[in-house]
Amino acid sequence: MNFTIIHKDFNTAARCGLIRTGHGEIPTPVFMPVGTRASVKSVEPEELKAQQVHIILANTYHLFLKPGNDIMGMASGVHAFMNWEKPLLTDSGGYQVYSLSELRTITEEGVRFKSHLDGSMLHFTPENVIDTQRIIGSDIMMPLDECPPWPAEKSYVQKSGNMTVRWAERAKKRLSATKPLYGHNQLLFGITQGGTYADLRTENSKALVDMDFDGYSIGGLAVGEPAEEMYRMLELSHGVLPEQKPRYLMGVGTPENILNAIERGVDMFDCVIPTREARNGRVYTRTGHINLRSARFADDFTAIDEGFDNHVCRNYTKAYIRHLLNVGEILGLKLCTLHNISFFMWLTRTAREQILKGCFLEWKEDFLATFNAGKQS
Amino acid sequence: MNFTIIHKDFNTAARCGLIRTGHGEIPTPVFMPVGTRASVKSVEPEELKAQQVHIILANTYHLFLKPGNDIMGMASGVHAFMNWEKPLLTDSGGYQVYSLSELRTITEEGVRFKSHLDGSMLHFTPENVIDTQRIIGSDIMMPLDECPPWPAEKSYVQKSGNMTVRWAERAKKRLSATKPLYGHNQLLFGITQGGTYADLRTENSKALVDMDFDGYSIGGLAVGEPAEEMYRMLELSHGVLPEQKPRYLMGVGTPENILNAIERGVDMFDCVIPTREARNGRVYTRTGHINLRSARFADDFTAIDEGFDNHVCRNYTKAYIRHLLNVGEILGLKLCTLHNISFFMWLTRTAREQILKGCFLEWKEDFLATFNAGKQS
Repeated sequence: MNFTIIHKDFNTAARCGLIRTGHGEIPTPVFMPVGTRASVKSVEPEELKAQQVHIILANTYHLFLKPGNDIMGMASGVHAFMNWEKPLLTDSGGYQVYSLSELRTITEEGVRFKSHLDGSMLHFTPENVIDTQRIIGSDIMMPLDECPPWPAEKSYVQKSGNMTVRWAERAKKRLSATKPLYGHNQLLFGITQGGTYADLRTENSKALVDMDFDGYSIGGLAVGEPAEEMYRMLELSHGVLPEQKPRYLMGVGTPENILNAIERGVDMFDCVIPTREARNGRVYTRTGHINLRSARFADDFTAIDEGFDNHVCRNYTKAYIRHLLNVGEILGLKLCTLHNISFFMWLTRTAREQILKGCFLEWKEDFLATFNAGKQS
Repeated sequence: MNFTIIHKDFNTAARCGLIRTGHGEIPTPVFMPVGTRASVKSVEPEELKAQQVHIILANTYHLFLKPGNDIMGMASGVHAFMNWEKPLLTDSGGYQVYSLSELRTITEEGVRFKSHLDGSMLHFTPENVIDTQRIIGSDIMMPLDECPPWPAEKSYVQKSGNMTVRWAERAKKRLSATKPLYGHNQLLFGITQGGTYADLRTENSKALVDMDFDGYSIGGLAVGEPAEEMYRMLELSHGVLPEQKPRYLMGVGTPENILNAIERGVDMFDCVIPTREARNGRVYTRTGHINLRSARFADDFTAIDEGFDNHVCRNYTKAYIRHLLNVGEILGLKLCTLHNISFFMWLTRTAREQILKGCFLEWKEDFLATFNAGKQS
């Protein structure tokens, strides 16, 4: 067993667990900062550890292009390459193929596409995506999938979802036929699709559950559909996915989305929000997010979130970080990024504590009331 | 006495000293990383301390423009503003007025210029530049000076140098007429000019020495003249400047320039080389500098300088940093910057140790032979 549920909430589907990987344990619910190209933008691995980050995400598509499998193999995998000795999850790159590359052709075999970097023609198959992730050495791997847009015709979502299931089968087969390269175990999750069509998602999830993956990624959501549709799909997934396997909601999301998904039984999250928005000056506080580029912070010598116990709030004022952003100093981006990561880690860590104490729902409602009331641009 | 000479080299003019400031002592010879706009690019203050940085430099012109004196005053000075509790030196901004601004008019009164940021007309005088540095609260201040280009007509250098002396006198007067704003003492150095005209530099230096400054900045060098000319001026300055005051060679320089200047009695250095070149991928090693953007490091899994005991060499390989630079990750710039700062700190720290051991000249020659032999683009 790679996953243990430690405590289940009484009122909701929320649960606390522990995922075991070759690079240590991950307490859930957990937020995973995004380090697409083997770097969480502007932050060093030891700084991530200091923010209590348990696991980061990297991207198979990007790492396949650069540095490429040769270099990654010579480095003995991504952990050694970037000096990160804690768990790491890789996305399959399917989503990036669809969103970044040109001239893609999807067939039963896999997907042919043009690299967004140099225009060369590349071919991803369920098999070679597993091979690449063996070389990367991620602790948790994703199979190649197709992520349909929203909205999409039901017939298309069904056809695509069925192919994703067949691809998942091939991925699992390849996994069994190969071995980890660096001596640590690698888990493989299944990615459920089906858009917001309840019957399709149920059918698709069941097919994957039958294959017995190490965990289940809930894919094809957070692609533009109303939040209520997403929540409906999570409630449905809760009933279909096995309780004793971790569940990862891909690409989510805002603090509100995360807490509402935890309430519906989700264990793992990743999102570019804390890192990408940081680079535009938006930082998160317990009383809403604010934009530090605003002139009103020019003479505000308080911390981003007074009393919030993290490195950035202990050491820097809004006025200083605003100055750094205002004059284009890189350090401004780094401090905003580090703060936001710390905030999202605090969010899922606190959710966990509140589940353990049996107060999750009450805390969530209090938190969101304060957070949403104070939210600014 | 704000400066104590601890040991004088037997063979050369090199010396080890200790400068006392309101924010602690500075062992000399010392390299001062440049933090123009109250930030050493991409690096946090605590990271600088971990690299054994004793003092950093900020720029009066840039800080006057942004965040401006109002904000700086409300912040209680630059130390509190940026959370740096060790010594800080401010350049007067004269050099930046000449190099960055447009439409400048220099009169006996001061210099009128157009801000390079918003085009507004500004006026720097010897008096208001001291006032601004009172507000900044730097531990070591510079008076407004004019730095002539090289080459320049002798008559111009003489006229300009004489005005710089009169400005220095006015700066000193303003210093006496005002008090530190934040309870710590602020030192004021005189800046010698005279280009590479021996008689002018001697005359100019003597006039400043008569005014009894806390230390002497050797200005108007490293502006394009041959290194030998600069060394000749340093030798001359060594004979004219009082032994018991610290000497700061502004804007220098390469490792070779720094060591040759230490040999000629210079105590303090600042230069953008380690930080600016880092952003282009050039990093310093004991066997020369190398450019990490080069493809030949793509599969080089050794440290930048094997056995060099700093944070970057302990934690990252050339291949990883090259990957970061190659894909445009900010962390690459930060790691190169941090490494180079560490290297320049090691350089002046080792020079100091070697002076104390009586082996400075021998060590310098050995170091430069190895360093210059291995130097690459």
